Amino acid sequence: MRSLYFDELRLGERFTTDTYAVSEAQITAFAAEFDPQPFHIDDAAARASAFGGLIASGWHTAAISMRLIVDGPLQFAGGVVGLGAEVSWPIPTRPGDVLRVVSEILELRPSRSRPDRGVVTVRNETLNQRGEVVQMLVAKLLVPNRPR
Amino acid sequence: MRSLYFDELRLGERFTTDTYAVSEAQITAFAAEFDPQPFHIDDAAARASAFGGLIASGWHTAAISMRLIVDGPLQFAGGVVGLGAEVSWPIPTRPGDVLRVVSEILELRPSRSRPDRGVVTVRNETLNQRGEVVQMLVAKLLVPNRPR
Repeated sequence: MRSLYFDELRLGERFTTDTYAVSEAQITAFAAEFDPQPFHIDDAAARASAFGGLIASGWHTAAISMRLIVDGPLQFAGGVVGLGAEVSWPIPTRPGDVLRVVSEILELRPSRSRPDRGVVTVRNETLNQRGEVVQMLVAKLLVPNRPR
Repeated sequence: MRSLYFDELRLGERFTTDTYAVSEAQITAFAAEFDPQPFHIDDAAARASAFGGLIASGWHTAAISMRLIVDGPLQFAGGVVGLGAEVSWPIPTRPGDVLRVVSEILELRPSRSRPDRGVVTVRNETLNQRGEVVQMLVAKLLVPNRPR
């Protein structure tokens, strides 16, 4: 797979990743380590909650999305080096969901101070098997230009 | 520890969590699962990279910060239910870092449509042992009012 430099990226280009199936065991294991709230780790408590059943930590959805992106078709030269992002979770990820990420290049801003690089804004929608958006991630990434 | 309802929160209140020591083994294990880029999983490759050594995935820093917050002194009634957030990583987390989170309530917005709840904006700074900010997370959380 070819890695893209900043000056090779095109506004509006879209990329779709492979899929990732999320099991209940994965959801509870991640949450036990990083987000041990009842609705992430305890099926009975989750059923009694407003969520009506076990849901993944938003940070687990974010981590899975990152794995899909790192393994996906949009490969940046120098890797995925995130400066920052806006993230939201319109609906939760649930056991049995099969996720994929659709990425679109929203903005390309050459660096003023460093002519060898630029900042790429990418919108990454994480979709479940019904096409519902479980995460919207708009990320700013640092990408080098092709060396001269 | 007492859980706070929306109508009990005060603008500008600050809360500091306990600490979390991050090992090289934890950094590479998280990254192997969710962000398998060379500078997160391969010490030699990381030393040769612009980072000069192994760094944690930003999503690992986010997950650790969440664990600190969930175990911390700012307990919301109903749990930490995030609607969305802005996150940035001014500098990376590195092996041996000891992280803590300082949270401050930035905004309290009662829901227009649902008088039983409100949206709280919290700025969560994750600091390392030198007081450097490794993550800035401004999160919007849904918090219920005290039932009447």
